[in-house]
Amino acid sequence: MEKADIGLIGLAVMGQNLALNINDHGYHLAVFNRTTSKVDDFINGPAKDTQITGTHSIEEFVAQLSSPRRILLMVKAGVVVDHFIDLLRPHLDKGDIIMDGGNSLYTDTTRRVNELAEQGIIYMGNGISGGEEGARHGPSIMPGGNKQGWPLVKGILQSISAKVDGQPCCDWIGEEGAGHYVKMVHNGIEYGDMQLICEAYQFMREALGLSVDEIADIFTQWNDGKLNSYLIEITSHILKVKDSDGQPLVDKILDTAGQKGTGKWTAINSLELGIPLTLIGEAVFARFLSALKSERLKAAKVLTAPDAQFSYSAEEKNTYINAVKDALYASKIISYTQGYMLMRQAAGEYDWNLNYGGIALMWRGGCIIRSRFLNSIKQAYDNNAQLQSLLLDDFFQTAIAEAQNGWRKTVARAVESGIPVPGFAAALTFYDGYRCATVPANLLQAQRDYFGAHTFERVDQPRGQFFHHNWSNE
Amino acid sequence: MEKADIGLIGLAVMGQNLALNINDHGYHLAVFNRTTSKVDDFINGPAKDTQITGTHSIEEFVAQLSSPRRILLMVKAGVVVDHFIDLLRPHLDKGDIIMDGGNSLYTDTTRRVNELAEQGIIYMGNGISGGEEGARHGPSIMPGGNKQGWPLVKGILQSISAKVDGQPCCDWIGEEGAGHYVKMVHNGIEYGDMQLICEAYQFMREALGLSVDEIADIFTQWNDGKLNSYLIEITSHILKVKDSDGQPLVDKILDTAGQKGTGKWTAINSLELGIPLTLIGEAVFARFLSALKSERLKAAKVLTAPDAQFSYSAEEKNTYINAVKDALYASKIISYTQGYMLMRQAAGEYDWNLNYGGIALMWRGGCIIRSRFLNSIKQAYDNNAQLQSLLLDDFFQTAIAEAQNGWRKTVARAVESGIPVPGFAAALTFYDGYRCATVPANLLQAQRDYFGAHTFERVDQPRGQFFHHNWSNE
Repeated sequence: MEKADIGLIGLAVMGQNLALNINDHGYHLAVFNRTTSKVDDFINGPAKDTQITGTHSIEEFVAQLSSPRRILLMVKAGVVVDHFIDLLRPHLDKGDIIMDGGNSLYTDTTRRVNELAEQGIIYMGNGISGGEEGARHGPSIMPGGNKQGWPLVKGILQSISAKVDGQPCCDWIGEEGAGHYVKMVHNGIEYGDMQLICEAYQFMREALGLSVDEIADIFTQWNDGKLNSYLIEITSHILKVKDSDGQPLVDKILDTAGQKGTGKWTAINSLELGIPLTLIGEAVFARFLSALKSERLKAAKVLTAPDAQFSYSAEEKNTYINAVKDALYASKIISYTQGYMLMRQAAGEYDWNLNYGGIALMWRGGCIIRSRFLNSIKQAYDNNAQLQSLLLDDFFQTAIAEAQNGWRKTVARAVESGIPVPGFAAALTFYDGYRCATVPANLLQAQRDYFGAHTFERVDQPRGQFFHHNWSNE
Repeated sequence: MEKADIGLIGLAVMGQNLALNINDHGYHLAVFNRTTSKVDDFINGPAKDTQITGTHSIEEFVAQLSSPRRILLMVKAGVVVDHFIDLLRPHLDKGDIIMDGGNSLYTDTTRRVNELAEQGIIYMGNGISGGEEGARHGPSIMPGGNKQGWPLVKGILQSISAKVDGQPCCDWIGEEGAGHYVKMVHNGIEYGDMQLICEAYQFMREALGLSVDEIADIFTQWNDGKLNSYLIEITSHILKVKDSDGQPLVDKILDTAGQKGTGKWTAINSLELGIPLTLIGEAVFARFLSALKSERLKAAKVLTAPDAQFSYSAEEKNTYINAVKDALYASKIISYTQGYMLMRQAAGEYDWNLNYGGIALMWRGGCIIRSRFLNSIKQAYDNNAQLQSLLLDDFFQTAIAEAQNGWRKTVARAVESGIPVPGFAAALTFYDGYRCATVPANLLQAQRDYFGAHTFERVDQPRGQFFHHNWSNE
């Protein structure tokens, strides 16, 4: 029997859909799952009319694979990955390739790349985004790790990935955990995008008093323009769905958000690297706050709303809807600016050569944050591959300049009328801080020098000279 | 020769001042420093007319101490602490006590407590706040770790600590790293307080157009009321100091803030524990942003300000100054609310029995965040030791209700006129989210279920039942 081109371990939904996707592209695939009944269920079910081979032990699985062996792990991030690596190791030869397609922490991937390299095994960490649908019909794939593996898997990965304008949404990211790192930042940005959409929805519903149906139509319209994106599109779909009683299903859903940790990791990493990732930070914190449901219910009873209620005239309605659109668009620019600042810092810190424009291309299709917007980011890096910040690119400067009045109006009205807009506000206060030649950190340094003799630099002296003032003896 | 009651290692400024403070209280002290010339400089200099004994080797140092030996490390956090523990270990007996008075990460302290307990040595991690002045004349001390040590050092630590209303600002915090943990949160809150003061300063200077002298006077007035605190007091002092050319010294200080990491650790911990610590997060991020000076200078040239400039009439001046005061006070309430939420979560997570009112008492004097305000927190926990959130206490509810109009006005005007107020805004958007019975996380959960089949709970079904909707087939 002919050996398989690639093997896949882990037949949860993502693994099954990727397997079917790989099969669709003419590759012969062997699969294995710890609970082997799932292998049979898959082979006799969704994979019935395919060339996919089910296996029932690691030995049988490995024996099915042509050399060098290409193995894609689609198992739960964490110790389960290490477990399967340990199971596979004794059966592999030098030059065989293990790829991890889960949401592993990038530091784990770096460790595994190095550990397996000692044994001559090529380890890659490939971030995969796109949810179930993407996995089935073309995800965004962010491969990194041991670069020796890339030429040996490039063909398969690029063929199963999403395509935009004929280009695969999959290209080499970088050494060590770079692929999983970029996937982590992608997920952080996804947290930000989702939070901003939720704030736009809440402001339109509670401040502007629009119905769920009206808001659904507005998202549909927005999806035709510069905000065109998968998340805006599915939001318009979601808001149109009715429950069995004819009411919007969204109103029946409990408002406590779950999370799997990648947004949290992104925020933690930004703190470690010293990058002000304020919007994603607020998005993660907003999920935490949503989870405090019983505490919020108590607080809602005793904490007062502002005296003034927001009101507007019929003629102002479209102005306000457009202002919300401006707030969403401008805040999104800030979020991506911060995300790219973080990747740039990481590239320096971890010595990775990241291709920022290429990353935007990879995110244009297949993944959850896919959007028209990412073309503009690609363009910005085409114009200047070493761009320090998206806000220093002409296109984004102009976009922010055009949006800022509506953005400010939305945040000001929300703040006055008591509608929470943590993401819009964090983005705007970042923008205003970023464009400050002088921030009040001079006062802060004076305080630190006052109580802790931490010293300060002076604006009229070269950097690197530190002064102390004996403040309390004045 | 009579043996010493306590030994101190590490004669940087904090160590020297603590040594003099201990001597003042009648304890006989032996000191040691890795660079032994510093011992002689200290003994012949600041410690000249004291009973302090200088030593020039670990052996000599240990031999000077009465049993059980009490040793206070005042050395740089990190590997240096482990280094001195390793040096001391062979010379110590069961029941001897090592205390770490530096800013160690609480997880390191927990590890050291457990490692040394195996050898019968009592290890304590004592957070100490107060800067140089506090160390010299009475700091706030937050002792934790191996509780066997507490009765043996309580007398010394409470006698050298600050006193407020006759009560020492030092009491047992908790097991393991609890003392250093509470000190870490203290430092995070300090970051928040400093950031809020800087925002009030910048708004008054740039939006209201007040002079540095006027602002200094306003802080002096504020220090007489409910904002009375050490940081407000030193801010008014700082703003009055002139450089040699007669201009405010603050204007000559470079606006790039430094940090030693404890604020960052607090924010990271909040992400790990799932608590929305938004204000301290923004304060840490603001320091990061301040450090991007050259990038900000570029951005200042190309990023546009809003069209509308803020203006106000002479009669409105005091209204606006009071609005800023409201913003500062209300934001401070939010910051402490979040900090106490974090400590409460940590107590549950790490199984520490924290005395929240006692912590407020310890912070009332000696430390950098000492303030009148902390009496109100103590009172809130006296009224309800298990208070879930400061915002659920009557005093703070009323305080926020009274301040909210000015707070909202300040943030709205800042947002409209382009003055960055990340802390004020994060505090306000948290307040508005916290008092929402329903946040838009229902839409967010619908999105997660749409693209990832992550399921949701329903408002009309019991918690713990998870539903999936086939959204894309609608």
